[in-house]
Amino acid sequence: MGKVCTGATMSLDGFIAGPNDTGFDLLFQWYGEGVPGQQKTTSEASAEHLRRLQERTGALVVGRHLYDLTNAWGGRHPMDVTTVVLTHNPPPARPQADDNFVFVTGGIKEAIAAAQKIAGPKEVGVNGGQMARQALEAGLLDEFHVDLVPVLLGAGTPFIGQFEGSPLALEGPVGTIAGVGVTHLRYRIRRP
Amino acid sequence: MGKVCTGATMSLDGFIAGPNDTGFDLLFQWYGEGVPGQQKTTSEASAEHLRRLQERTGALVVGRHLYDLTNAWGGRHPMDVTTVVLTHNPPPARPQADDNFVFVTGGIKEAIAAAQKIAGPKEVGVNGGQMARQALEAGLLDEFHVDLVPVLLGAGTPFIGQFEGSPLALEGPVGTIAGVGVTHLRYRIRRP
Repeated sequence: MGKVCTGATMSLDGFIAGPNDTGFDLLFQWYGEGVPGQQKTTSEASAEHLRRLQERTGALVVGRHLYDLTNAWGGRHPMDVTTVVLTHNPPPARPQADDNFVFVTGGIKEAIAAAQKIAGPKEVGVNGGQMARQALEAGLLDEFHVDLVPVLLGAGTPFIGQFEGSPLALEGPVGTIAGVGVTHLRYRIRRP
Repeated sequence: MGKVCTGATMSLDGFIAGPNDTGFDLLFQWYGEGVPGQQKTTSEASAEHLRRLQERTGALVVGRHLYDLTNAWGGRHPMDVTTVVLTHNPPPARPQADDNFVFVTGGIKEAIAAAQKIAGPKEVGVNGGQMARQALEAGLLDEFHVDLVPVLLGAGTPFIGQFEGSPLALEGPVGTIAGVGVTHLRYRIRRP
C-alpha cells in the first residue's frame, strides 16, 4: 500500500484558511505566480511539483466541510482522483458511492482504509485541518507536506491545531522546493 | 539606518514556544544538527547563516518576559550585541543603561528607535511574539525571518498571533537556506 500523506497550502502563521473561510485569494496566489514580466502562471518549479504530486496520488480523504465549501468541486476533484468524504450525514441526493466521491461515516480509520483500497500502490492525500488532525492522532500519517506561502492571516483554521500526542518531532525536511511565492516542504512522520 | 527585522525559530504550526514556555529542546534542536555520523554540531549551512546574521545585526529589541526567562542571558545576549528591553518596570537593581542592556519604557517605537541609534547602519533584530506583533502593527518592520523546524507543538506562543492589519501579504521568500532539521526563510514586508 502507498503512503498516507497530508498536505495543504499554509500561511506563515500556520493557517490553511482565514477566519470564516476567508484568505483563499492570498493562500492560493502561488498558483498564479510565474516568471516576472511574463504572463502569470504557476512557476516551473511549482508546476513540476504539482505534476509529481498528481502522479503519486491515488485517492484523497476530505471532510464534509470542504466538500460543501467547494460545492463538490463541480463534480470532480481538480486532482482528478477519487475523493473519500468523511461525514456523519452523506448527502441524500447522491449515491453512496459514485465514480468521483465515496462517502464514509465510520471515522478516519475507515476513510483512510477506503482511500488506500482505491489508491492501490499510490499515495493517499489527507486534507489539512480536522482530517489531518484525526489521522495524526490515529497514527495513520506517513508524511506532512506544506506549501508555505508568504502571508500572515492572524487567525483562522490551523493545519493541525491542538492534538493528542503533542509536542511531536517530525523528520526533515526530506524535500525542499523553492517556488515563486511558495516553498514546498516535505516532512516524514515516525509511525508510533 | 539599517533594516528592522524580526526573526525566530518557529514550529511548523507557527509557535515560538510551547504551552507555558515548554518545547525549547525541540525548537532549538537544529543548533545541534550536524552531518550524520559525525559529532553533532550546527550544520555548515546553518552555521554560515548564523555568522552572517551576527555580522549584520547591530542591536536587538526584546520584551521583559524573555529577559527574565533567560535570566538576562547570564549578563550578555549570545549574539554579543546591545539588547534593548521594552518593559513597564525596569529592574531596580540594574542601571537604566549599561554596556549590555538598555531599558525602554515608552513603547515599541521608542525601543526600536533606541536600537537603531545603537545599531547605526546595521540591522535591528526584534524578538518574535509580542515585540514582533507590536512592531508589525506600528509599521516598523522591514523583514520577517523564520527558522522553520520540523516540530508540531499544538499550542503555545505564536510568532505574531492576531494582529491589526491582518491578513497581510509579505514578499518572498527572498532567501531560502536548507539546513539540517531547519529551513531558514526570509521575507520582505512592504512598509505601509
